[in-house]
Amino acid sequence: MDCIFCKIINGEVPSVKVYENHKTVAFLDINPANPGHTLVVPKEHFENLLDGGDEILKEIMLTIKKVAQGITKALDLKGFNVGQNNGAIAGQVVPHLHWHIIPRFENDGLEPWSRKEYKEGEMEEIGEKIKKEIV
Amino acid sequence: MDCIFCKIINGEVPSVKVYENHKTVAFLDINPANPGHTLVVPKEHFENLLDGGDEILKEIMLTIKKVAQGITKALDLKGFNVGQNNGAIAGQVVPHLHWHIIPRFENDGLEPWSRKEYKEGEMEEIGEKIKKEIV
Repeated sequence: MDCIFCKIINGEVPSVKVYENHKTVAFLDINPANPGHTLVVPKEHFENLLDGGDEILKEIMLTIKKVAQGITKALDLKGFNVGQNNGAIAGQVVPHLHWHIIPRFENDGLEPWSRKEYKEGEMEEIGEKIKKEIV
Repeated sequence: MDCIFCKIINGEVPSVKVYENHKTVAFLDINPANPGHTLVVPKEHFENLLDGGDEILKEIMLTIKKVAQGITKALDLKGFNVGQNNGAIAGQVVPHLHWHIIPRFENDGLEPWSRKEYKEGEMEEIGEKIKKEIV
């Protein structure tokens, strides 16, 4: 498969790896939102969150925490964001499940997304729709 | 403790809950980035990702997947973002660990964060610093 992250994982494409265990790898994003922006990926290829098996997803969560702890200490952070995009419409560029850990600094120019307002009754209606589909 | 999410969890403050199990709850964000924006929280109060115990973090990951599957089906999504903010500097408003699931739609006005560039050698240097602190 012609997947850039699979190639990074197997060493075919160079990267700055900061952590690796039997199931997951963490390496720096080459176009960081902030310096130290790190990606956490499963070694096995899954396209997105919904494709990931439960066991690997749990492993990834522990790697995210471990790596975030390291970044926090290394860069003396007061905070960071964790993010994960599913689908091109959500900004997913590489179709290999990956989690972003983004260090935050004062006045770093990263702005939160704008928020919308629900019309009366709309929230309850959408909630009902969603609740019905969670099995 | 005067925590709005603890009050939502115990029912003291109303919310539109879409899922609940023994350890986690999912409810709609009242100021959504998009309709269907859902928060996943542990019932136990942790401030952020670094405070969360491994077992509860793994449970949360499974709830995120389950709820995201439901939202995807209910709203017929082509994609969604998962996000989690740690610290006021990272946009964390409520200091009770929570994960955002944000449905995405065509032309919804949500823009990805800008990216920066590393100077020569900077990425390798930061990578070394981080690697040393991951234990």
